Amino acid sequence: MTDDRVWIFDTTLRDGEQTPGVNLNLGEKLEIARQLERLGVDVIEAGFAGASRGDFEAVERIASSVRTPVIASLARCVHSDIEAAARALGKAARPRIHLFIAASRLHLEKKLRITSEQAVERAAESIRFARNYCDDIQFSAEDATRADIEVLRAMYEEAIRAGATTINLTDTVGYATANEFSRLTQDLLRIIDGVDGVRFSVHCHNDLGLAVANSLVAVRHGARQVECTMNGLGERAGNAALEEIVMGLHTRRDYYLAQCATNTRQLYVTSRLVAALTGVEIPPNKPVIGANAFRHQSGVHQHGVLRDRSTYEVMRGADVGVPSADAPLGKLSGRHAFAEQATKLGFELADVDIDAAFQKFKDLADRKKTVTEQDLIALLSGQLIEVPSIYHMVTYQLFAGNVLTPTATVTVERDGRTIVEAAVGDGPIDAAFRAVDRITGMSPVLESYAIRAVTEGQDALGEVTVRIRATKDAEKRTLGKGASTDIIEASILAYMNAINRSMINQA
Amino acid sequence: MTDDRVWIFDTTLRDGEQTPGVNLNLGEKLEIARQLERLGVDVIEAGFAGASRGDFEAVERIASSVRTPVIASLARCVHSDIEAAARALGKAARPRIHLFIAASRLHLEKKLRITSEQAVERAAESIRFARNYCDDIQFSAEDATRADIEVLRAMYEEAIRAGATTINLTDTVGYATANEFSRLTQDLLRIIDGVDGVRFSVHCHNDLGLAVANSLVAVRHGARQVECTMNGLGERAGNAALEEIVMGLHTRRDYYLAQCATNTRQLYVTSRLVAALTGVEIPPNKPVIGANAFRHQSGVHQHGVLRDRSTYEVMRGADVGVPSADAPLGKLSGRHAFAEQATKLGFELADVDIDAAFQKFKDLADRKKTVTEQDLIALLSGQLIEVPSIYHMVTYQLFAGNVLTPTATVTVERDGRTIVEAAVGDGPIDAAFRAVDRITGMSPVLESYAIRAVTEGQDALGEVTVRIRATKDAEKRTLGKGASTDIIEASILAYMNAINRSMINQA
Repeated sequence: MTDDRVWIFDTTLRDGEQTPGVNLNLGEKLEIARQLERLGVDVIEAGFAGASRGDFEAVERIASSVRTPVIASLARCVHSDIEAAARALGKAARPRIHLFIAASRLHLEKKLRITSEQAVERAAESIRFARNYCDDIQFSAEDATRADIEVLRAMYEEAIRAGATTINLTDTVGYATANEFSRLTQDLLRIIDGVDGVRFSVHCHNDLGLAVANSLVAVRHGARQVECTMNGLGERAGNAALEEIVMGLHTRRDYYLAQCATNTRQLYVTSRLVAALTGVEIPPNKPVIGANAFRHQSGVHQHGVLRDRSTYEVMRGADVGVPSADAPLGKLSGRHAFAEQATKLGFELADVDIDAAFQKFKDLADRKKTVTEQDLIALLSGQLIEVPSIYHMVTYQLFAGNVLTPTATVTVERDGRTIVEAAVGDGPIDAAFRAVDRITGMSPVLESYAIRAVTEGQDALGEVTVRIRATKDAEKRTLGKGASTDIIEASILAYMNAINRSMINQA
Repeated sequence: MTDDRVWIFDTTLRDGEQTPGVNLNLGEKLEIARQLERLGVDVIEAGFAGASRGDFEAVERIASSVRTPVIASLARCVHSDIEAAARALGKAARPRIHLFIAASRLHLEKKLRITSEQAVERAAESIRFARNYCDDIQFSAEDATRADIEVLRAMYEEAIRAGATTINLTDTVGYATANEFSRLTQDLLRIIDGVDGVRFSVHCHNDLGLAVANSLVAVRHGARQVECTMNGLGERAGNAALEEIVMGLHTRRDYYLAQCATNTRQLYVTSRLVAALTGVEIPPNKPVIGANAFRHQSGVHQHGVLRDRSTYEVMRGADVGVPSADAPLGKLSGRHAFAEQATKLGFELADVDIDAAFQKFKDLADRKKTVTEQDLIALLSGQLIEVPSIYHMVTYQLFAGNVLTPTATVTVERDGRTIVEAAVGDGPIDAAFRAVDRITGMSPVLESYAIRAVTEGQDALGEVTVRIRATKDAEKRTLGKGASTDIIEASILAYMNAINRSMINQA
C-alpha cells in the first residue's frame, strides 16, 4: 500500500463507548453511525458483537442500514466471538472482522497466561477461521508498544499468511513517545514479510497526551489507516481525536504526503452530536472544535489577525463547519426554512421528527428574541435522544427558598391518565425529582447533573443533562436531556427523558 | 547546558490568562502563583507588565511575595515595555525579563512591517538595554516554526552575544509536526554559535493537538526548558499542558534522559484550583488529571487491571495527587482536623479564611451525609475567590412553574442595612437575578452560566459559575462562584459573588 490515501477508522461506537459513564442506546448508535457516514469515514467499528447483546444488535442494525463505509466488529481470538461478529455483520455491504490478541509479555503472562508462541498460533488459527466468513480481516496486536519486536514480527507475519488484510499497531496504554512510535512503525514496515500487500494501521491512546502525535508520525512513515474517535473519547484519557487527525492531515498535507477522504465541514456537527448523545462536553480549549479554537484574546494577536488572519490561524472555522454567529431564523420562519436549516447543519430528520422539532423551535422563538444556529444545534441534538414518552410532563409548580422547605408539585400524563404528586427536598431540583419519583414509583440514583447555557444573555436556553443509575442494576445507566429557558423545567424534562429512555431500553 | 535537568516555565498567568473569557484578579493570580511555587515549577511568568496596569500589579505583587521560583515578565522589544518589566520585577528574588520579537516573514511583513535584519538588530539592542536592569534575560523568536532557519540562527546568535541567558523556540500557531520540531531543535542546537552557554527553551501551541508531543521531542534532543500552562489553557486551543509534560517526563525518564523538579503529587490540586478560578472546567478524558484518567470501563480492561494494574495503567492516580474516594470528614470533625485536611489537599489559608471555610463545611455537613475530598476541594476552591462582601444574601424565596410567572424575592444586606426586592423573569434564575439587579441598581449581561454536581447523589453539592459583563464596559468581565445543595441558592450566591468582585476590582 504505497498510495497516499489514509483510511479513517472510527471507533467512537466501540472504544469511545468504553468512556466511563457513557452508555449509548441502539437508536443513538445508529444516529452517530449515519452522521459518520456523512462525515465520510472509511470504516466504522460498530461494536464488539461477542461482548453483549446490546453490542450485537448495534453491529447488526448499523451493518444493515449504513452502506457506504466498511462496518467492523471487534472480536477476541475465540471462535464464539468470531461467529457472533460474522452473524452480526451478515447484512453488511462491506463487513470487516477485527481480531485482537495481546502481544506484550506483561499482558500475555498476567492477563491471558499463555506464551507468545501460543498467542501467535491462536491469532493465525482465528484469522483462518474468520476468513470462512469474511474476506476483510483486521488483526491487532494489543499493547504492541510494550511488546518484543520479534514477537510482533512473528505475529504480524503469521497474521498476513493466515489472511489478514489490515494489520494494526496499538499503543494500548498510551506509553510510547513520538520518536519511539515513529521508529517502531518504520522498523515493522521494513522487516515484516508481506506487509506491502496489506494496510498498515495504528491505534493510539492518550494517557500521556501523545495519541494524535503518535498516529501522525506513523502516517508520515507509511501507516495508511488511523483508528480514532470523535472528541477523543475512549477508555481513560481516550483515543486519538478524529477531528485533530483529520485537520492535521488536511492542514499539513505538504508534510504528511497523505490525505484522507473525510469532509472536514461535517466535523463540527458530528462533534456536537456525539457530545449531546454521550453527555461528555467539549472543553473550550479543545483543538479544532472547541469554542475558543478560533477566538483571539490578546491585543498582539488581535492586531495580527486584523492585518492578516494567517498570522495567528493555521485553519479557519468554516473549514471544520463552525456555524456563523448570524441569527438565521426567527419567530416568522416557516417549517420549510427550518427543515432546510436543519439539513444545512448536518441533521437528517424524518418528517415526523421535523414536525416535533419545528414545534419546539416555535415555542423557543416565542420565548427568545433570536434563535441562533447554536440554539438550533442544541434543540436538534436534544430531539435526537427523544423517545416515545411513557411519562409526559404537563405542569410543575415550585415553592423554594433558603428559609423555606423546597416543595415541588408535578403533573404528569401516562396513557391519557393525569397523575399529580408533591414532594419536599434538599433543594428545588431534589424536590421536583422526588415528586417525579412518587409518580413513577422508581427512585434511581442521580449520578450526574450538568447544565450549560447554550447562548448568552438572560434568556439563554439552558440544556440539562442528567445520568441516572437504576437502584436494582448498578450497571444500568441512562442519560437524559432537556432544554428550556427555565432550568427547573429543563431539569424535570431531562430527568423524565432519562426515565422514559431507561424503560424503553429495558423493554 | 548538557545536564539532565529540564526547567518547567509556567505561563498560566500570562499565556493561560489569554484564554478567551478568562479574567483573573490580583488575589487570584497570587493564589495561583503560590500554588505553582508549592508545585515546584522553576519559572513563573506572572504577566506582561507593559501591557496593562493589572498585569503590572500582578507581576509586582507576585515578585515580592513568591520567592523560590524565578519570576518573569514578558516584554516586547521596546524600551517602555522593558522599563515596565524591570520596575514590576524590582522586588523579585530572582527576576527575569522575557523579550520577544516576530521571526517569520509573515509576521514581520504583515504585523510589524520591518525586515528580518531590522528585527535582529532590534532584538539585540533591546537585550543589551534589558541587561542594564537584570542578568536573567530570555529571548523568544515568535512564530519561529514558520521562519527561515538562517533568520532564526542570526537572531539567536545576536541575542546570545547581546546577553540573553535563555533562548526560546516557539511554535506560536501550533503548526509544526513532531518530526519537524524535533529536526528544527537538533539543527538549531548544532548551528547556533554560543548555544552551549545558554538554556534552550521551547513554547508550543496546541492548534493541531501536538503541543505536548512537540515539547517532549525537543527535550529528547536537548531542550532544557519547557513553557507550559496548567490544564493546557492559553490562546485558541491553548499551550502545552504542564501536567502532561511533567508526567511524560516522569513516566518515561528512561527515554527522555531528563527530569524536572516538579512535585507530581501537587498536580491535581493545582489543576482544580486553576479550573475553579478561571471557570474553565476539565473534561473527563483529559490526560493525567481528568476524572476518567484512572478509571477502567470495559470488561477486558477491568479483568486485566484486577490481575495487574500495570496491564492498563502507566501511572497511578496517587502519583498526581488524585484524592482517594474515602470520606475523610463528617459532621463531628473539628476545626483542627478540617484545617489539617485542607493543608493535606494543598490549600494554604490564613486563619481567618479557615474560620469562614470551616463554618461552610459545618453547614454542608449538616445537609449532606458524607463530605468527600471532592466536596472539600470544591468548597475550598470557592473560598479562594471570595472577597469581602459588599452585598450579602440573607434569604431568598421563589415561586415558579411552567403555568405560573416565575417570581423571586431576595433579601440582601449592605453596610448593615437590609434591602428586599422582588421580580419576575423568564425562568426562576432569571427572576432571582432580576431581583438582585433591582437591589444593586446594576444590570450586567449574563455571559455564561454553568453548574456542575461536584459529587453524585440527590444531595450533591452544586457549584455554579457565572460570568457577567458590565453593560457600560464590554471588556470588563467578572467570574463569580457559589456552591450549595440548592441550585437556586448557589446561582444567587454566584451572581452576587460576581457583582461584589466586579465592584472591588473597580475600586
